[in-house]
Amino acid sequence: MSSHPDVRAIVERVRKDEIGGAADTAKEVVDALSKMVRDSKAKNTKALVAEIDGAVLDIMRVMPSLAPPINALHRFVGTMERGEADGVSVEQMKEALQQSRDQFFEWAENALGKVAQYGAEKVSEGDRVFMYSMSSTVWRIFRAAKEQGKQFEVVVTESRPGNEGLWTVKEMDKLGIPVSVSIDAAIGELIPECSAVFVGADVISSTGHALCKAGTYPSALVAKAYGIPFYIAADTLKFDTATLFGLPYRNEAIHRHDVLDDSYPDRAKVVGHLFDETPPELVTAIVTEIGILHPAAAFAVLQRMNPSRKIGEMLPAWSRGEL
Amino acid sequence: MSSHPDVRAIVERVRKDEIGGAADTAKEVVDALSKMVRDSKAKNTKALVAEIDGAVLDIMRVMPSLAPPINALHRFVGTMERGEADGVSVEQMKEALQQSRDQFFEWAENALGKVAQYGAEKVSEGDRVFMYSMSSTVWRIFRAAKEQGKQFEVVVTESRPGNEGLWTVKEMDKLGIPVSVSIDAAIGELIPECSAVFVGADVISSTGHALCKAGTYPSALVAKAYGIPFYIAADTLKFDTATLFGLPYRNEAIHRHDVLDDSYPDRAKVVGHLFDETPPELVTAIVTEIGILHPAAAFAVLQRMNPSRKIGEMLPAWSRGEL
Amino acid sequence: MSSHPDVRAIVERVRKDEIGGAADTAKEVVDALSKMVRDSKAKNTKALVAEIDGAVLDIMRVMPSLAPPINALHRFVGTMERGEADGVSVEQMKEALQQSRDQFFEWAENALGKVAQYGAEKVSEGDRVFMYSMSSTVWRIFRAAKEQGKQFEVVVTESRPGNEGLWTVKEMDKLGIPVSVSIDAAIGELIPECSAVFVGADVISSTGHALCKAGTYPSALVAKAYGIPFYIAADTLKFDTATLFGLPYRNEAIHRHDVLDDSYPDRAKVVGHLFDETPPELVTAIVTEIGILHPAAAFAVLQRMNPSRKIGEMLPAWSRGEL
Amino acid sequence: MSSHPDVRAIVERVRKDEIGGAADTAKEVVDALSKMVRDSKAKNTKALVAEIDGAVLDIMRVMPSLAPPINALHRFVGTMERGEADGVSVEQMKEALQQSRDQFFEWAENALGKVAQYGAEKVSEGDRVFMYSMSSTVWRIFRAAKEQGKQFEVVVTESRPGNEGLWTVKEMDKLGIPVSVSIDAAIGELIPECSAVFVGADVISSTGHALCKAGTYPSALVAKAYGIPFYIAADTLKFDTATLFGLPYRNEAIHRHDVLDDSYPDRAKVVGHLFDETPPELVTAIVTEIGILHPAAAFAVLQRMNPSRKIGEMLPAWSRGEL
Amino acid sequence: MSSHPDVRAIVERVRKDEIGGAADTAKEVVDALSKMVRDSKAKNTKALVAEIDGAVLDIMRVMPSLAPPINALHRFVGTMERGEADGVSVEQMKEALQQSRDQFFEWAENALGKVAQYGAEKVSEGDRVFMYSMSSTVWRIFRAAKEQGKQFEVVVTESRPGNEGLWTVKEMDKLGIPVSVSIDAAIGELIPECSAVFVGADVISSTGHALCKAGTYPSALVAKAYGIPFYIAADTLKFDTATLFGLPYRNEAIHRHDVLDDSYPDRAKVVGHLFDETPPELVTAIVTEIGILHPAAAFAVLQRMNPSRKIGEMLPAWSRGEL
Amino acid sequence: MSSHPDVRAIVERVRKDEIGGAADTAKEVVDALSKMVRDSKAKNTKALVAEIDGAVLDIMRVMPSLAPPINALHRFVGTMERGEADGVSVEQMKEALQQSRDQFFEWAENALGKVAQYGAEKVSEGDRVFMYSMSSTVWRIFRAAKEQGKQFEVVVTESRPGNEGLWTVKEMDKLGIPVSVSIDAAIGELIPECSAVFVGADVISSTGHALCKAGTYPSALVAKAYGIPFYIAADTLKFDTATLFGLPYRNEAIHRHDVLDDSYPDRAKVVGHLFDETPPELVTAIVTEIGILHPAAAFAVLQRMNPSRKIGEMLPAWSRGEL
Repeated sequence: MSSHPDVRAIVERVRKDEIGGAADTAKEVVDALSKMVRDSKAKNTKALVAEIDGAVLDIMRVMPSLAPPINALHRFVGTMERGEADGVSVEQMKEALQQSRDQFFEWAENALGKVAQYGAEKVSEGDRVFMYSMSSTVWRIFRAAKEQGKQFEVVVTESRPGNEGLWTVKEMDKLGIPVSVSIDAAIGELIPECSAVFVGADVISSTGHALCKAGTYPSALVAKAYGIPFYIAADTLKFDTATLFGLPYRNEAIHRHDVLDDSYPDRAKVVGHLFDETPPELVTAIVTEIGILHPAAAFAVLQRMNPSRKIGEMLPAWSRGEL
Repeated sequence: MSSHPDVRAIVERVRKDEIGGAADTAKEVVDALSKMVRDSKAKNTKALVAEIDGAVLDIMRVMPSLAPPINALHRFVGTMERGEADGVSVEQMKEALQQSRDQFFEWAENALGKVAQYGAEKVSEGDRVFMYSMSSTVWRIFRAAKEQGKQFEVVVTESRPGNEGLWTVKEMDKLGIPVSVSIDAAIGELIPECSAVFVGADVISSTGHALCKAGTYPSALVAKAYGIPFYIAADTLKFDTATLFGLPYRNEAIHRHDVLDDSYPDRAKVVGHLFDETPPELVTAIVTEIGILHPAAAFAVLQRMNPSRKIGEMLPAWSRGEL
Repeated sequence: MSSHPDVRAIVERVRKDEIGGAADTAKEVVDALSKMVRDSKAKNTKALVAEIDGAVLDIMRVMPSLAPPINALHRFVGTMERGEADGVSVEQMKEALQQSRDQFFEWAENALGKVAQYGAEKVSEGDRVFMYSMSSTVWRIFRAAKEQGKQFEVVVTESRPGNEGLWTVKEMDKLGIPVSVSIDAAIGELIPECSAVFVGADVISSTGHALCKAGTYPSALVAKAYGIPFYIAADTLKFDTATLFGLPYRNEAIHRHDVLDDSYPDRAKVVGHLFDETPPELVTAIVTEIGILHPAAAFAVLQRMNPSRKIGEMLPAWSRGEL
Repeated sequence: MSSHPDVRAIVERVRKDEIGGAADTAKEVVDALSKMVRDSKAKNTKALVAEIDGAVLDIMRVMPSLAPPINALHRFVGTMERGEADGVSVEQMKEALQQSRDQFFEWAENALGKVAQYGAEKVSEGDRVFMYSMSSTVWRIFRAAKEQGKQFEVVVTESRPGNEGLWTVKEMDKLGIPVSVSIDAAIGELIPECSAVFVGADVISSTGHALCKAGTYPSALVAKAYGIPFYIAADTLKFDTATLFGLPYRNEAIHRHDVLDDSYPDRAKVVGHLFDETPPELVTAIVTEIGILHPAAAFAVLQRMNPSRKIGEMLPAWSRGEL
Repeated sequence: MSSHPDVRAIVERVRKDEIGGAADTAKEVVDALSKMVRDSKAKNTKALVAEIDGAVLDIMRVMPSLAPPINALHRFVGTMERGEADGVSVEQMKEALQQSRDQFFEWAENALGKVAQYGAEKVSEGDRVFMYSMSSTVWRIFRAAKEQGKQFEVVVTESRPGNEGLWTVKEMDKLGIPVSVSIDAAIGELIPECSAVFVGADVISSTGHALCKAGTYPSALVAKAYGIPFYIAADTLKFDTATLFGLPYRNEAIHRHDVLDDSYPDRAKVVGHLFDETPPELVTAIVTEIGILHPAAAFAVLQRMNPSRKIGEMLPAWSRGEL
Repeated sequence: MSSHPDVRAIVERVRKDEIGGAADTAKEVVDALSKMVRDSKAKNTKALVAEIDGAVLDIMRVMPSLAPPINALHRFVGTMERGEADGVSVEQMKEALQQSRDQFFEWAENALGKVAQYGAEKVSEGDRVFMYSMSSTVWRIFRAAKEQGKQFEVVVTESRPGNEGLWTVKEMDKLGIPVSVSIDAAIGELIPECSAVFVGADVISSTGHALCKAGTYPSALVAKAYGIPFYIAADTLKFDTATLFGLPYRNEAIHRHDVLDDSYPDRAKVVGHLFDETPPELVTAIVTEIGILHPAAAFAVLQRMNPSRKIGEMLPAWSRGEL
């Protein structure tokens, strides 16, 4: 275990699942590593690399299947690998990694703004748009559209068991956007009355499949049956390099107490997971910070990413929990 | 308003929505009318007919869009119309109507048994079958399959807002059938893991569209995407003669308090209805007491019914609430 | 050739294609035959039957593939056949045929009214409905909906080459129904903005395929892609008994001068026909006078018709132009 | 076991699977029963009925899942049941059953001729039609089309493991119809080059699903993908009343020695059955002797059949092999 | 407003819509800018850049939504931006831009030739190919196929309201290619009889949606229903960088006088636009000068283009007409 | 004809179709060329290039449509072209080409291993996977999955006429993987009972269409109808640069004697080819050594390949057999 306090802290928080959104976790991971690098006493590049390798291993061992922090590690470790390949000095390496951290933070600030800007173009005056569950990225799109002076309304459903849809109700109301809400089972009635569907995603795979909040896939089927555009808002941190290598997404099971109280016998089981998978043929476009694209082009997005070799080699064992 | 106490009672109970299932209401309506006929002091057929016409009008004025009691009225009034056409005496008419009531009760007892028997053939040893919400007809199918000695398990979801799916959990458990439950939004994950889907219906239209509990239509889309058989269990009382004439089904809105508590502003609306519509191309078969058939054959079923002329003529005004 | 002047007249008019709509032709054919029967000097049933058989043959020899007059002949000749089978006297036969004629006229008057009444239920307040080309049956539906006090608008396209869509523009305007018009090629943009599509049909086959004005089939594809209900308005005279036996519909080629003027060389060909075929899976319902039904139920409709044996036996040779 | 030699003979031949086509078996069954009736010494109707009941039970106990002989029994036993209900004398019953036998034979002779006549209308001059495997009914269609003077060619595939497709090659060649043949796996290339597909069926279910030679279902998928009409030729004897009650078709497993020789280890299994199921949405029409119809209308066909009550009650136990 | 006469001229011509095809406009824009650069008196790079920026703004302010001239500006301004970044002298900048102009002209000459060459491979001996409306790019494909000695024929429809399809008739006739023509509404009959469909496009979006002449989308639906290959011919100038950022295509409304003459009341509206949108799942391939590709790969094409930063920043305001 | 013995040998072997798999042929071609280069007496780069050009032409003249050897030539000749462009000496060129050969061999060794590794992730414990025909690449996937300790079984069909499926039976049995086999026509029954389908491919086109063993396309239709993942295993050597330019794949006709013996008349033709084409919308993913991707991303894969200019220019004439 790395001895640097920031690295230990983030490892602990990830292990205990005390982290917030995936994008915030990505930033925290990079920040902790960059602080460790800053404070490192390593005399030469090799020693520094060994220190970083150790910390990265500590982090990966506890990391669940969240594309953003893993993509952030690709960037950070990739910078390190290029430094190694170029034979840079330990000072140069420290500077390069500090710069990598700063650029990542700047990039992340810009990316969501661009997704919001591009996505807002898909909201038109007078629209009634459907949103499944919650997604701060989609909220930003709606806020941007609202700031452009467009009048539109939002329909959402509860998104059981977490009821994140009710969070969307409050958020839209704060933004002054008229909002309606219903039960998840009403998607078959409500989506055909809307002009577009917007959802956020947790992961976009290399084949353009999207892992989103459970209920998204049936929503996409309804949208397809009625020719209604279905947009996924996701910056490219959500594109998962691990899927290139066939690695599965991890998915969390629904908790028993979210469905059944104690009056039900143990032999009645609670099944299902919190996320489901939407195939590319049901999706009109993914809105990313590098543009609006077809899900089948996910491979072209991942090719731009220059994944780190070391992270790549860790992934198979990581995906089997054997790291 | 008819002065017969049984007729007045059923009219009051329907008006106040104190009725149980649609099939039970059908029986109560016919029973009340047959008692009024039994007790009638009418001196001639014409007078008796006038009395019945009045009572039927009282009942129809309060009747919501439930196919079974309306179909029961078609039968009962149809018998009366044939008697009129044949110029029968008042005694003959009374006897014919009493017989009609008895035959209807006997028919209803048999019909559900046959649906259960035929439907049970579609459950196979080792199956994992998905059921949406609850339906006492589907429960009978599962009970019949269980009684045939078949081992199988049932997957159901909550069916918000009424949580009738949890009722299914308890019922299956009582029958000794292993049962699993999840959130409604998990249908996209769960149905592909099952071998068949069974649902009940409230109404089958003349074009084979089915009005079922909200969430059934998205379930049918998922089943179609995975080639999984989708069965609707419905005796022919559920086939709605009013739809032949283009009349819409009535559908109940979801109650605000079922979705939002008082912490939400009034301007956040609750939308959606308790039922949705599943088109015939998504349904493998409807299991009825006259056999298992394709939904597109609904017209052939309705043709067998000899609808009453008087009821038919009431329906347009009834559907507009102008009776 | 029959010597009765009314029969000769209708034969001539059909031969020269001076007839109006298919439904009017059906009435004229039956009327001419009933007049011939009325004036007949036949001494016995056999002689009368021979006279009728001859006149029917004269008519069928010139009749194009129009289901309504052929169905009308099924009715009229069927009455005659039942009379023959029952061994009725010549007077009884005359009376039965006169009655058959009167019932047919009364039926025809009622049928279109019922189609209009049932179809109007599918037009809702605030709708924007698409209509392809023209159809007096669909016009009656819209008039009925308007008379119910519903506000709605109609979108239509030109329907080249005859521009019958412009006729619809004038007709809707007369009825006070707001109307918009565009080119036929704009169906891909316009239908998705509408709430339902209504078309008339020339023929409904025994398998539920509909022969309608060219452009209907692509319109149905667009409607399906957007989940928009697609209604065909057609009384049961349009259901074609000849298709039961595999006989094809006849279809008229587009005239060269409707597309190309004389500046084009002869080697540039004009192709295509005035009607195209819409398969049952693209149609939500057919609105008939006996109710609204799924196209796949066409066989059940044809089974009600008791087709005449003699007409049935003529059809194969007739369809090959060898009668 | 019935003591009548003809009944014993047919029972033995069915038990040993020495029967020919399903239609021939139907005739043999009816013929044996009618001979038993003719020779019966029964003194009264009740005794005769008991004798027949016993023989029918003997036959049903050995009968595999072939709709035609079971439908023939429905007819024959149905006649007997009507006689019982009408209280006829033993002589009248004998005569009625003899007549029933004769009518069935006459009907069967006519039915295939009509299927051929109607189906031949769907073959056009210059066509290239695809036929899967063999079917004497489809062969009759092609012969009828040829006799009408149409020039067309037939494409067929082997239809492993029985290679019945090669039988079609020889049969077409005898008829002077140009024929091409390929492997079953080539359907994806060959069907798109054809103008229509014709297949025979073993069973049509009450929901319009067809049990046909294995390979038919993938052929129907290819035809659908290319908009090519897909016709099933089947007289109404093939419509299976047992499926109304949910009873499954029986299907024969492929024999090990048809796929693997002795050089393969026993642990390599041979799987699959000789028939597969084609759903109604892939089929353009079924060509029957009562007309060409949509598969979803199968229920309307079965409703015409007046199934025998006694046979109907035997079917559930029969389908479980417990009769 | 730029004072250079060539720039003023092209701005005026674009403003008055006196321009020809989009590709020619692209060339004229680049040519005018390169002449302005050649004639510029700017003393330093900064001054030259300011001059160009002004002229580009003038042009963009009047430019309708045509991808080719905007893409040409991306190239030209991108060269300028790279010069700025590299700190080149004003002479070097002038030379670089002159070279950029020349390379663009050479590229444009080659690109259409390659599209023709690659597309011609998709036309086979004996084919009957359908072409919607007109497209000089598709004409070049057919000319190339003809020059390879292939015999084939072309089917086209009028393409109301401009009747550009008749232009295709004349052009094909000049090339000696047999041609047939019909009404636009006949696509449902004609496309299934063809072996492939070819259309030109005005814009290809970043998600692979194509903006083509109205009627193309229904044609693509028909082609899909019959498994017929659907090719779009479009060099990469048609790939629209603005769509990456969510910007809509502009589309021209159909003129009232193209549909209705003065005999129609003003309250009858003419609706619809000259172009419609075809989604990627209906298109077999786009034929470009860099190869034949799937529409979903449009993002990979746009990534090759190195769009200019300045043009990119102008696009949002431009798309709202607020530049 | 090149005089180098290794080149002559491979040209002869390709001409006589004595080659093994496409991947082995690719290696042999590159090896022969590298030996010719090694042994060359050329005094300068130009002479060496001329020698290589000649040998490449010899090889291409006999080469059938196999993407791997042509892609290998792209690599080798591309290296030569870059050397020419850089003006390298003849010694440098020889060294560069030797290195190119070695890298290609190393790459080829690694690529299949990665495809196996990534593909194995798509096989899960307890799976029943369907494989069509044989493919050594798919076998490697199954071996890798087995080596990971997963228990699963394989279902395959014969794959007439070559019966390569039986080869798979033996191979799986050797690997200790339970295997079942059936006839090709049983895919409609067997694929729906499996959890995934794996096939190899001969060619992947630039639009993502795959040329695979005949029967693959119908298998993909069945998989799609049941929502079953369909994977193609293919390293990027199988991605065909010729298809970028519209060039067709060559395909081999089925041999007469594989279907008919001598008892059939010559006028009965054998038709069909050994491979069929599967469109991208039926394929879940292609498993390549650079990752798992959507077929529509094939263009992005081909863009990475830097095809050789000279080979590219040869392809049109080569595809017409006119080289």
